[in-house]
Amino acid sequence: MKLGVVILAAGLGKRMRSSLPKVLHPLAGRPLLGHVLDAAQRLEPARIVVVHGHGGDRVKAAFADQDCIWIEQSEQRGTGHAVIQALPAVEGLDQVLVLYGDVPLIAAETLRDLVALGAETPLGLLTAELEDPTGYGRIVRDRDRRVTRIVEEKDATPEERRIDEINTGFLVADRPSLADWLGGISDDNAQGEYYLTDIIGIAADAGVQVATSQPAQLAEIAGINDRVQLAELERVYQRRIAEELMRSGVTLADPARFDQRGRLVTEPDVEVDINVIIEGEVRLGAGVRIGPNCLLKDCTIGSGTEIMANCVIEGAMVGANARIGPFARLRPEARLADETHVGNFVEIKKSRLGQGSKANHLTYLGDAEVGAGVNVGAGTITCNYDGANKSKTIIGDGAFIGSNTALVAPVSVGPGATIGAGSVISRDAPADALTLSRSRQATLTGWKRPQKKS
Amino acid sequence: MKLGVVILAAGLGKRMRSSLPKVLHPLAGRPLLGHVLDAAQRLEPARIVVVHGHGGDRVKAAFADQDCIWIEQSEQRGTGHAVIQALPAVEGLDQVLVLYGDVPLIAAETLRDLVALGAETPLGLLTAELEDPTGYGRIVRDRDRRVTRIVEEKDATPEERRIDEINTGFLVADRPSLADWLGGISDDNAQGEYYLTDIIGIAADAGVQVATSQPAQLAEIAGINDRVQLAELERVYQRRIAEELMRSGVTLADPARFDQRGRLVTEPDVEVDINVIIEGEVRLGAGVRIGPNCLLKDCTIGSGTEIMANCVIEGAMVGANARIGPFARLRPEARLADETHVGNFVEIKKSRLGQGSKANHLTYLGDAEVGAGVNVGAGTITCNYDGANKSKTIIGDGAFIGSNTALVAPVSVGPGATIGAGSVISRDAPADALTLSRSRQATLTGWKRPQKKS
Amino acid sequence: MKLGVVILAAGLGKRMRSSLPKVLHPLAGRPLLGHVLDAAQRLEPARIVVVHGHGGDRVKAAFADQDCIWIEQSEQRGTGHAVIQALPAVEGLDQVLVLYGDVPLIAAETLRDLVALGAETPLGLLTAELEDPTGYGRIVRDRDRRVTRIVEEKDATPEERRIDEINTGFLVADRPSLADWLGGISDDNAQGEYYLTDIIGIAADAGVQVATSQPAQLAEIAGINDRVQLAELERVYQRRIAEELMRSGVTLADPARFDQRGRLVTEPDVEVDINVIIEGEVRLGAGVRIGPNCLLKDCTIGSGTEIMANCVIEGAMVGANARIGPFARLRPEARLADETHVGNFVEIKKSRLGQGSKANHLTYLGDAEVGAGVNVGAGTITCNYDGANKSKTIIGDGAFIGSNTALVAPVSVGPGATIGAGSVISRDAPADALTLSRSRQATLTGWKRPQKKS
Repeated sequence: MKLGVVILAAGLGKRMRSSLPKVLHPLAGRPLLGHVLDAAQRLEPARIVVVHGHGGDRVKAAFADQDCIWIEQSEQRGTGHAVIQALPAVEGLDQVLVLYGDVPLIAAETLRDLVALGAETPLGLLTAELEDPTGYGRIVRDRDRRVTRIVEEKDATPEERRIDEINTGFLVADRPSLADWLGGISDDNAQGEYYLTDIIGIAADAGVQVATSQPAQLAEIAGINDRVQLAELERVYQRRIAEELMRSGVTLADPARFDQRGRLVTEPDVEVDINVIIEGEVRLGAGVRIGPNCLLKDCTIGSGTEIMANCVIEGAMVGANARIGPFARLRPEARLADETHVGNFVEIKKSRLGQGSKANHLTYLGDAEVGAGVNVGAGTITCNYDGANKSKTIIGDGAFIGSNTALVAPVSVGPGATIGAGSVISRDAPADALTLSRSRQATLTGWKRPQKKS
Repeated sequence: MKLGVVILAAGLGKRMRSSLPKVLHPLAGRPLLGHVLDAAQRLEPARIVVVHGHGGDRVKAAFADQDCIWIEQSEQRGTGHAVIQALPAVEGLDQVLVLYGDVPLIAAETLRDLVALGAETPLGLLTAELEDPTGYGRIVRDRDRRVTRIVEEKDATPEERRIDEINTGFLVADRPSLADWLGGISDDNAQGEYYLTDIIGIAADAGVQVATSQPAQLAEIAGINDRVQLAELERVYQRRIAEELMRSGVTLADPARFDQRGRLVTEPDVEVDINVIIEGEVRLGAGVRIGPNCLLKDCTIGSGTEIMANCVIEGAMVGANARIGPFARLRPEARLADETHVGNFVEIKKSRLGQGSKANHLTYLGDAEVGAGVNVGAGTITCNYDGANKSKTIIGDGAFIGSNTALVAPVSVGPGATIGAGSVISRDAPADALTLSRSRQATLTGWKRPQKKS
Repeated sequence: MKLGVVILAAGLGKRMRSSLPKVLHPLAGRPLLGHVLDAAQRLEPARIVVVHGHGGDRVKAAFADQDCIWIEQSEQRGTGHAVIQALPAVEGLDQVLVLYGDVPLIAAETLRDLVALGAETPLGLLTAELEDPTGYGRIVRDRDRRVTRIVEEKDATPEERRIDEINTGFLVADRPSLADWLGGISDDNAQGEYYLTDIIGIAADAGVQVATSQPAQLAEIAGINDRVQLAELERVYQRRIAEELMRSGVTLADPARFDQRGRLVTEPDVEVDINVIIEGEVRLGAGVRIGPNCLLKDCTIGSGTEIMANCVIEGAMVGANARIGPFARLRPEARLADETHVGNFVEIKKSRLGQGSKANHLTYLGDAEVGAGVNVGAGTITCNYDGANKSKTIIGDGAFIGSNTALVAPVSVGPGATIGAGSVISRDAPADALTLSRSRQATLTGWKRPQKKS
């Protein structure tokens, strides 16, 4: 059976009140449509077709790397009309599965069940039972429990309104039959739109047995129309991620205060304190502890390392048994070896720090190659930028950089060298010697302190 | 109809366990009484009367700018007694609306409905239906649904206890009738207090038809007796604010982790990450992104600007397309032009930064006028204070301040000037030239490192 | 009556997926078993016996200071088997109370009631009524409401499954009778384990009247099997702590964003903003305000002091009416007197700061003795470490340290001394004089800026 997936992504999303197309709003850091495409890809379909609306260029650009066919629905004439636009693109396939770009949490497992159902019957429909079905189209069944039609809230009799099984909109259909049924729908209704839903009644009238299945979680079928709903699904998603992490052996101090926007790979016994954000691709070794209020993006942290409170780490690699923070900022291409210490108010960018080296206070290291066992004193600044070019600072193993030192790159400090506190080092400092630049200390005893001006 | 609003604010609030009068405890950064005064003001009454208790000076001082009449209730003799104290102050008006200083979320719309009701009948009462009415006075109605009296929990028959409509205490009354009815209440009860509630029965007995209306939200009628209840209403308030913001087009990463204590004005497509606090008056331009754990107070942020994680911004103005943080502190009178960059561990106070200027690392700018296109190197400090006076630092367009430089104010750096790294600049630096102060770098080769003392 | 408490702590805790024994996982910063030991201690028993499993050394080491007897249950053969191992250790006592190392929130009051019950009858059992008892052993009672046995879910008749009173596992028994009953249990069941629970039926069959009591809160009987349950109980615990604090007169901006892991002592009118973490032993004076995102560990903060946003304070003492932060880091042995100001990006370690002294920006003070009324300029660094030893910096009362100064310890600055900005002070600076080290400022007019390399 060759499967085609049609994703309807042309909705205007007016209630988002945004210049960004609705399906590009992020949930857990990924556009809504991206979540739906991910679920679709996991079915390994023969083809994916996305029906986009006016201004689809931005949507297409956001998914330029996706192998899918883009169809424009230039007028908003309803879901049925949208699927009709997609029919030429699924020509030659056996089955068509319809998904929605603004219903992001649909699970691949749920879709797999639905598609399997569709292999046995021309029409499979995903339904759900709600405690409060108000507002949804109800699934009307005959006394043999066969689906006969879907009735919208406004057209429903009081008895029909008591039905708690509702239409989710997700369906799978035999492709040629789908084309036939769509030929039978009309826009003769209050909205003047073609509804995909109408094919259910047409199929049922034609004697087709409509099969139904249900999702594992109700959140899977929740659509997003405004930012309140977006925030709700964000929390559902985050709660789910947090539970998976905890079950896999990560301690979260508060699962309600954890945000993962990307991929997190953990070894055993990782502990994550409150309010931590994970973005991009993050790997945490065994026994890593992440303090409160840390933001980690695209980084790898080695086993036994502790990241203390209020750190921002992006694009960095930290070795094992290191101690980072609090208030440390590691920027892209920071490479910290095992047992390094980086302390408060320290920024490291595009620099290597060798094993056991320390930069504990108020320091900026940029474009630096720092050896092992180096002590970088408080207030050390690599002057890596001369207004035009970036240059490198090389510091050999075992060097000691006195506090409040400016290292004017390009410059190198030899292994075992000591730099006197408060120096400006603009020429290479030799190995194993003390190098400094310092003015004579003088005292002016006749001097009077300034007075407060009135 | 001339309306007088009487706000009862004399309660001792013992369960707050505070030296601060209860009605001064803040909710969303504003004293409880302030919320009630705001609701009252929106009705545009002829007069507002606040009945305060012992130690009312602090309360009066907190609302010195409010146009209201302060009445002291020196003894705590009940709500009826409190309203009696206020009667002389509403002399000559038509209607009296009674509000409570510790019931802060009452909505002006609810009060407007109640006042309108009071225009048609001598007594209008706000009631509410609770799932669990235990502890509240129940509204007893006759078979024609007319209110006959209010029965307190302890005096209620089992049947009366099943009544789920309760008295909220909010009422509006014809002023002369109110004075009459109050003349009929007594303190002959267990607490020895005069209850305002008793006028209901008196009025009903006198054949008055008591009209009732209900609030839109139950939180409107919730009173605060301790800090647990205060925290609960704070969350209700914040949740409401967050929903309004989201519906207006602001993305909140987590509405449960957003706090607004003041006023926030936003243009479209603002994104706010977790744990952000807004205080005072804040304006955010289109497409502004606020990172996690930021505190913004009394500031304006221009369109397209990004405030990264962990910033504290107060009293500052930031232009468009700027990039601030992480770990930046902007203090009062910081004025940052468009496309400025202020990075980690940078503090800016009472200073201007011209278009496209950058101060990216470990810098303090105080009392500085910085032109456009300036690069302020890492570790730059304006020495703006000599122990007695603050002085200015002027930096011209296109200047380049080398890292780890001290600028000893008053001092100016000319346009296009370059300051060598590690300099102490205490005299003006001319335009377009390199200025620096630097000692000769020297190496002592015979020098031995200190040894660890045993 | 001599009471022995037996705590079963031998469970493997596979679902924790941890190399740490389950009972050592922390809840509110204290191992699970520690919470149970605390509850046990409050009963002032004659003896506490902990039954640990394989690898109990780590558990014993964690509680080396506890006065209890450790018994190893080398094989996991069930709760009954575990208690049998403990019998020799309670020889000579009257009563035995059985607790669980992974049921941490059991309240001492609940246990006290249960023990009192056990003084009147040979067997007292803690039971609970659950809305959904699925999965638990049900308490079967005869028509006189006497407990006859406990039936496990899988063995229960449909009628028995409707019983909502369940067995919590907590029980107290007459010691000699307990020994007898345990002699009667067998491992002839699906799991091949000896169940403590089986003694209930044995005792009842022997005509013993089994007394029952119930806990005040259901969370008391909740066991921890995985990190999801651990996180749930952490929140229950934190919520309870937060409510107690609020009722005692502390304002919490959001009780759901407050974490106390240790002991907090507060005077009246303390205010705590969102996301604050308390660890170890913390004391906050009257009127102290703690800003958002602060971490306070083992510290004392004096009355009227404000800790602003994003501070990390550990092992420090701060006087009254001080102002700390935002972005301040106080490390162990920081001692700040009254009215001190410590500002952004300032780190203070093992140093004293006298009354009214200020260090407001980008400073590191380590091993320093700073007098009263001292102004420490921005960018001041104490160079306290020479690579081998730490040395002291002494600053006298009323001294003024110019910005960007390095103080090379050991060094002293006399009272009333002024240090010029940008100095490196390596020799003592006399009192009441200006001391500085500064190179001549020079301008190179012929100099050309570097060009961008292609």
